[in-house]
Amino acid sequence: MPKWIDHIVVRVKDLDATLKDYETKLGMKASKGPEDQPHLGLRAAILPLGDGGRFIELVEPLGDGAIAKSLAKFGEGVHLVALAVDDLKVAAAEMKGNGARVIETQGQVFIHPADGHGVLYQLIERK
Amino acid sequence: MPKWIDHIVVRVKDLDATLKDYETKLGMKASKGPEDQPHLGLRAAILPLGDGGRFIELVEPLGDGAIAKSLAKFGEGVHLVALAVDDLKVAAAEMKGNGARVIETQGQVFIHPADGHGVLYQLIERK
Repeated sequence: MPKWIDHIVVRVKDLDATLKDYETKLGMKASKGPEDQPHLGLRAAILPLGDGGRFIELVEPLGDGAIAKSLAKFGEGVHLVALAVDDLKVAAAEMKGNGARVIETQGQVFIHPADGHGVLYQLIERK
Repeated sequence: MPKWIDHIVVRVKDLDATLKDYETKLGMKASKGPEDQPHLGLRAAILPLGDGGRFIELVEPLGDGAIAKSLAKFGEGVHLVALAVDDLKVAAAEMKGNGARVIETQGQVFIHPADGHGVLYQLIERK
């Protein structure tokens, strides 16, 4: 059972321009990045929300990959919503047992957007 | 300065089918709805996350309106992301002063998705 919305990932065309808008117009402040993450095919920055570890991540595609494909198909917007769970393995097994399409890749757990009805959820372990 | 992600609103074609998936496959449980809200042009259900008042709201359009238009244009997905702020008036005035396109309507405050780079943010007062 998810406990809270831990973070969202927003895919954008131009990370620098977006970061500038989020920092100047929306009053947020990056704690990390902009930083190339070529192994993930993206360039990213983290904007923390409060002191509880929640954040907004802005990502721009680097080369081809999942982010580039989604950006081409859907444009800028929310790429995924990460939900905090007590125990990642337990939550993933439970949802899989209940018929959800659970995608496990490189230690990360996602719920297929067909089950989220247009939303790609990530499950993330948070105490 | 936003403190946390309070809730997201997900627009869907079929609220009953979506609610069934979120309840059975994802293990959430509606605390309210499905309920017609004809004055808002939608039918909605609330799925609480933990005990902190955070939630996912599922909405299906009723007739024409903002939700129907977005659904036709963008399909199912995240309609808005609500960010908690200490004081709604102060936050709205601050962002407006910083050049954000702040939309105030019926006591609610939104940031135009052009400034959110594809994301419609709502500001919501939470203590």
